Amino acid sequence: MEVFEQLESGVRVYSRAFPAVFTTASGHHLTDEQGKRYIDFLSGAGALNYGHNNPYLKDRLLAYIAADGVIHSLDMATSAKREFLERFQKVILAPRGLDYRVQFVGPTGTNAVEAALKLARKVTGRQTVAFFTQAYHGVTLGSLAVTGNAAKRRGAGVPLLYSVAVPFDGYLGPDADTLPLLERLLEDDHSGLGLPAAVILETIQAEGGVNVASWDWLRRLERIVRRYEIPLIVDEVQVGCGRTGPFFSFEPAGIRPDLICLSKSISGFGLPMAIVLIRPDLDIWEPGEHNGTFRGLNLSFVTGAAALCYWEDDTLQRETERKGKLVADRLGTLAARHLPAGQVVRGRGLIQGLALAPKRLAKRVAQLAFERGLIIETVGPRDSVLKVLPPLTIDDEGLAAGLGILEDSLQEALSETPDAELSLLAS
Amino acid sequence: MEVFEQLESGVRVYSRAFPAVFTTASGHHLTDEQGKRYIDFLSGAGALNYGHNNPYLKDRLLAYIAADGVIHSLDMATSAKREFLERFQKVILAPRGLDYRVQFVGPTGTNAVEAALKLARKVTGRQTVAFFTQAYHGVTLGSLAVTGNAAKRRGAGVPLLYSVAVPFDGYLGPDADTLPLLERLLEDDHSGLGLPAAVILETIQAEGGVNVASWDWLRRLERIVRRYEIPLIVDEVQVGCGRTGPFFSFEPAGIRPDLICLSKSISGFGLPMAIVLIRPDLDIWEPGEHNGTFRGLNLSFVTGAAALCYWEDDTLQRETERKGKLVADRLGTLAARHLPAGQVVRGRGLIQGLALAPKRLAKRVAQLAFERGLIIETVGPRDSVLKVLPPLTIDDEGLAAGLGILEDSLQEALSETPDAELSLLAS
Amino acid sequence: MEVFEQLESGVRVYSRAFPAVFTTASGHHLTDEQGKRYIDFLSGAGALNYGHNNPYLKDRLLAYIAADGVIHSLDMATSAKREFLERFQKVILAPRGLDYRVQFVGPTGTNAVEAALKLARKVTGRQTVAFFTQAYHGVTLGSLAVTGNAAKRRGAGVPLLYSVAVPFDGYLGPDADTLPLLERLLEDDHSGLGLPAAVILETIQAEGGVNVASWDWLRRLERIVRRYEIPLIVDEVQVGCGRTGPFFSFEPAGIRPDLICLSKSISGFGLPMAIVLIRPDLDIWEPGEHNGTFRGLNLSFVTGAAALCYWEDDTLQRETERKGKLVADRLGTLAARHLPAGQVVRGRGLIQGLALAPKRLAKRVAQLAFERGLIIETVGPRDSVLKVLPPLTIDDEGLAAGLGILEDSLQEALSETPDAELSLLAS
Amino acid sequence: MEVFEQLESGVRVYSRAFPAVFTTASGHHLTDEQGKRYIDFLSGAGALNYGHNNPYLKDRLLAYIAADGVIHSLDMATSAKREFLERFQKVILAPRGLDYRVQFVGPTGTNAVEAALKLARKVTGRQTVAFFTQAYHGVTLGSLAVTGNAAKRRGAGVPLLYSVAVPFDGYLGPDADTLPLLERLLEDDHSGLGLPAAVILETIQAEGGVNVASWDWLRRLERIVRRYEIPLIVDEVQVGCGRTGPFFSFEPAGIRPDLICLSKSISGFGLPMAIVLIRPDLDIWEPGEHNGTFRGLNLSFVTGAAALCYWEDDTLQRETERKGKLVADRLGTLAARHLPAGQVVRGRGLIQGLALAPKRLAKRVAQLAFERGLIIETVGPRDSVLKVLPPLTIDDEGLAAGLGILEDSLQEALSETPDAELSLLAS
Repeated sequence: MEVFEQLESGVRVYSRAFPAVFTTASGHHLTDEQGKRYIDFLSGAGALNYGHNNPYLKDRLLAYIAADGVIHSLDMATSAKREFLERFQKVILAPRGLDYRVQFVGPTGTNAVEAALKLARKVTGRQTVAFFTQAYHGVTLGSLAVTGNAAKRRGAGVPLLYSVAVPFDGYLGPDADTLPLLERLLEDDHSGLGLPAAVILETIQAEGGVNVASWDWLRRLERIVRRYEIPLIVDEVQVGCGRTGPFFSFEPAGIRPDLICLSKSISGFGLPMAIVLIRPDLDIWEPGEHNGTFRGLNLSFVTGAAALCYWEDDTLQRETERKGKLVADRLGTLAARHLPAGQVVRGRGLIQGLALAPKRLAKRVAQLAFERGLIIETVGPRDSVLKVLPPLTIDDEGLAAGLGILEDSLQEALSETPDAELSLLAS
Repeated sequence: MEVFEQLESGVRVYSRAFPAVFTTASGHHLTDEQGKRYIDFLSGAGALNYGHNNPYLKDRLLAYIAADGVIHSLDMATSAKREFLERFQKVILAPRGLDYRVQFVGPTGTNAVEAALKLARKVTGRQTVAFFTQAYHGVTLGSLAVTGNAAKRRGAGVPLLYSVAVPFDGYLGPDADTLPLLERLLEDDHSGLGLPAAVILETIQAEGGVNVASWDWLRRLERIVRRYEIPLIVDEVQVGCGRTGPFFSFEPAGIRPDLICLSKSISGFGLPMAIVLIRPDLDIWEPGEHNGTFRGLNLSFVTGAAALCYWEDDTLQRETERKGKLVADRLGTLAARHLPAGQVVRGRGLIQGLALAPKRLAKRVAQLAFERGLIIETVGPRDSVLKVLPPLTIDDEGLAAGLGILEDSLQEALSETPDAELSLLAS
Repeated sequence: MEVFEQLESGVRVYSRAFPAVFTTASGHHLTDEQGKRYIDFLSGAGALNYGHNNPYLKDRLLAYIAADGVIHSLDMATSAKREFLERFQKVILAPRGLDYRVQFVGPTGTNAVEAALKLARKVTGRQTVAFFTQAYHGVTLGSLAVTGNAAKRRGAGVPLLYSVAVPFDGYLGPDADTLPLLERLLEDDHSGLGLPAAVILETIQAEGGVNVASWDWLRRLERIVRRYEIPLIVDEVQVGCGRTGPFFSFEPAGIRPDLICLSKSISGFGLPMAIVLIRPDLDIWEPGEHNGTFRGLNLSFVTGAAALCYWEDDTLQRETERKGKLVADRLGTLAARHLPAGQVVRGRGLIQGLALAPKRLAKRVAQLAFERGLIIETVGPRDSVLKVLPPLTIDDEGLAAGLGILEDSLQEALSETPDAELSLLAS
Repeated sequence: MEVFEQLESGVRVYSRAFPAVFTTASGHHLTDEQGKRYIDFLSGAGALNYGHNNPYLKDRLLAYIAADGVIHSLDMATSAKREFLERFQKVILAPRGLDYRVQFVGPTGTNAVEAALKLARKVTGRQTVAFFTQAYHGVTLGSLAVTGNAAKRRGAGVPLLYSVAVPFDGYLGPDADTLPLLERLLEDDHSGLGLPAAVILETIQAEGGVNVASWDWLRRLERIVRRYEIPLIVDEVQVGCGRTGPFFSFEPAGIRPDLICLSKSISGFGLPMAIVLIRPDLDIWEPGEHNGTFRGLNLSFVTGAAALCYWEDDTLQRETERKGKLVADRLGTLAARHLPAGQVVRGRGLIQGLALAPKRLAKRVAQLAFERGLIIETVGPRDSVLKVLPPLTIDDEGLAAGLGILEDSLQEALSETPDAELSLLAS
């Protein structure tokens, strides 16, 4: 690890939490230089929904490279890109009755968010974007302005502008409805908010602490923004591509976003790729108005098109929902057994959070879990939530093994925790 | 091409300029579905300095994937990343007496620029960044604010802030020195500029029209920013990695940037990757303060490390300089033969520009060249500059063939151009 | 009036609502060129608390001018200024146990607000100022950013920055407490708000619709901002100087603002003047850091010092409270008699509002009242609130006469109003 | 003075430079409590062009107040306001062939500037305003953003936005033309400037150091902004109302500003007042879109209308020009006698600057002059310029006496100055 300490910037963070040098990976496992194998409950922060080195995708990738397929093509037309577009239309959009144009953007989630924000502002001629408390949308200047995390925001070095935070579902407690405030701010022309250029939303705030918006709240939010003709941007970067069960996390709510940001698992193989789905009448971009060198990584198109095989029927969705329930139940049991009363488990499908009140407890659990061979990260305010995010392709045995390590680690961490701090849990 | 028109956003641009569906590529050639072969004078806008599907890099890539090497690793430590770091230190930094920390950022040039701007602001506690007229640094909100192109800036949908343009070398004509203004603005505390957080610079403004800063101007600029303790960011995204001859375009000037942005050809194979080189004492990032999902694409580290073999001796540099001179001479001859008098050729190494005054002439030449099997783009104000940007690995025959097509296309385009417009050239 | 239409900008507004050319004024009366006398329930929007041409102040003013007293003195020391400072300290600050430094600013309320905002930002090193929905603080760029009115905000021609609106007391209905949201946004470091540089407040939002903050809400607000060390700015421009009874409107709440803005009636005679009261340890201005040509209008100091005679005992305060109750009762009776049920009267002392739901009804009442010889303005969203704001020195007869006109005008306006619109009142 | 130190904010500045308590004033004299009389070469920073307590204006003022004329009237119509409008039209605008609408704004120069900036942005739909290096336009947030002084800008506590500084005439030395840069930035759509919403200009930068724009430069500037349809705002706050000779300082250049800001001496008596003159077709304000409580100080209208008597013939203009020449000659002689060679005197009419290179020399001269009974201030970078700004009504004797004190003070200050510093003058 010395090389990294000497040559890499101090900004590195995962290599501090998971201090090993990894070499190979397969399915839900990572292996380090010493040959130690880890169960992966992090999945590249959602970039590896189909597992590491998924064999079907890998074969397609190797064949493409071996045949001297075009690797890099800016935003020129290629046969690989056409196949992705056709399959995405046929497998994802058409069956769901969705009509969107696909914008290929610089291959990162934050670039998709930047493009969506720009387009919404261009379309409306307005500037301020409403985002939600505890939201996370990226760290380039435009995306950072709609991200809640104060530590990340400070990194900008400038005051972040053209954005305003409004309370997410549940932000003021389970019984307080947060939408009346938004409604009032919009209908009152002395509110000081003005009509926003967009509302940007994660249906589940992954980095914010696995905060789940209810279906009812999402539907009412959509009605409000429709009334005021405010474009709704749904950021599916972490919870799209089947993470919660359906391909799009918002499907069960029945809402229709105006703009959708996808990245992470859209290439299916951990390769960089990002797209924005645009309601056709909002696609008013001038040619080249948003660009970037790596919008045309054909390897991503190849694996991305191949990965859509998982969506030709509903097997993966049903399996993800089943496994999600399994994880939720196990976390619930585990919480009931080891922790004072209180609803601390939340999530949908294979993104599940276990919120732990005592300071640093979640961090300590993750640390002990790593020693035992499980990679899991903490998220949310004060890093207080353990986020369970395995590959969707994990088998039940792998899940059980990972959750077992989690339980052991929690037990050990609790044994180290003073009673005074634990009593916080009950409050 | 219909699929693209129906399903892809109207923002697409290169597929309009080069209307073909490409399938395979090798060296300095691209091949389309009809089997037509094109000479590539665009090189992925600088992302393919070592050519398409460079065989040595390709072998390493295939072997790594076949062995189930870790593909995606956030910013965790991997053996592939360590090898890249070690080789970059050994082959690039150490021999040049350079001491920098490497920050892996979201794998796009604009992300590197965003990170550098943030860090400079954090380090100085100042906000405004001085950039140069006709600069191009990217289209996310932070980078766009330091980009000159008005059409791109309008895409933001909001006024762009925290930045100010100052005139680049030669901006007011060959005889006007532009640095006294910058100096005066800095020394006068009533100037209205204030001390900037950074000066960001391309040594050659590629997108801006292949505008070349002289060595003397660069040296004097460095002295000015040193005097006022203003970090100097050099954006080497397009002209670094050997494009002008040496690995860093600024080497012959002898300057030492505080922050250097690299992307495009740093992976060597057209794979997404970007890094910021940071003067060690400026590396004050908090862990995770700038992050991103795709900072750890190990395929890029593998090919990026392999590509450094080109820098173990000075062959590539010398060859690039030799070929650059060849291109410059040929363009000079061609200009002399077909165009009224005037210095219209500029560049260094294998980035050379041919500026054509009559409206739309350059665009027309590029269009005719494409029909003849040459891919070349136009840049600069009113797209008036043809930018010659072949892979560095192109052979003399390929160069000659491409330049031949260029000359034929120019001749044809001129034959279509009214005399009135041509006379502009002489003015 | 033709002269005004031809020569004056279309921005004029009160001369449209009150289309007469006024010549003289005395006490609570204005007289126009035709000799028609009007009862003044507007009082220069609060600049004439002691009545027009108050005889005592007038005598002092005439004597000062006749003796060639210094008229204009920038911020130099003058005997008139010293007298004001000494009397303000002795009559206002000392008896209330208050300790503030006095900053003389450009003689307008908005200038006082601009100065307070600047100082709060300088003191904290933070940027965003939290203001309240429906707030009004002025129309220069800094003050406008903390003003709710969308029409006024549009006048800026630029997006307004460095500010965020939070809900005022009662904004979400009488039963919804608005402070838990503010508290949550402050304690959560992922909220996206960040710690503000200041909270700026009117205890009664006069322009916003005579919205009254409860004493309890004000006290809890103070506790919250204290906990997070956020300076509290109270804008007393319209409701200070005895308008609500006590000299400062916030006195009964027992709170201690960090910065207080005073203008309008501080000179006592309708002459321009504005000051900021600064908690001594926050007075970190550099000499001249905020300046302005008319900070030293000695005529204002002369009448301002003289006007403090009203504050040497509590007669004025008690009388204002008595008359305020009288007005509130009369408006209550009038509402009960003519309007469907519903609490529509609100205010404190001699600022009282009568909110009328049907569209344009309040505007029409004011128009009819003007014809009958009463000057009264409408405020709030959709100009739906009649604001009763007579000079504090008005006698009971004048009050009764004005309220009589108001009742007659309401009756006539209602007779013109379709039943369908009236039924809105009951909802 | 103790009272001021104890009770007034540390922001006070003129009372530090001129430490006396003033009581009465007449013509070009101020008298302090000890009866010491001072010659006034500061004139309320330009607010007292017609002298202190000008007897004709004073008589009109006293009569108006005695007759219970309306004092404060928001922006309602009054007979006093009508008389001002009519006389301003007849005496100032009509004879000069000028056609403007008059906007009455909050009675300070900065408020006039804020209004003009807002209107220009509203008219153009653009945001950035170009201002000139060393400009001074005020300290509220909008005006401060177009002011050069870094110390004042820091007072904002936030980064100042929507503005960009371009070099004033002479900024890069007497031989460098600064307009080609502006022209190039405007014609090049890759310049990074974009089309500004306005250019704001002082013909002589008073606070900036008495920097004088040449007639030719002004004319060429006007041609440039016309070509790009950029509104030209001329800030005449300090140098209008006859300060340089003609009523408007720009008259000899023959230019026609789109918006003109007037304040300071527009009331003629040192009373607060400010107006914006608006080209009729640009007067697109909504009623009330820019407002303020003290737009209707009728005392200012009374004295302002009376003061226009000075403009019924050209006596004042010719006298100001004659006296200006007298001052310039005397300063020239004085400089030649006491200082090393170099052009150090600049100005027009009765604003004349004497620039002194050695650090703190100008400050010391002003201090010694004050002791000798002359009030004169220093301006410009490092307060290095003595600004001679007597009332226009001063007689030759008064001028000579003041200049005599100035010479004596300079001589004494030089005698205290080390030779090393003096030698700077020659460089």
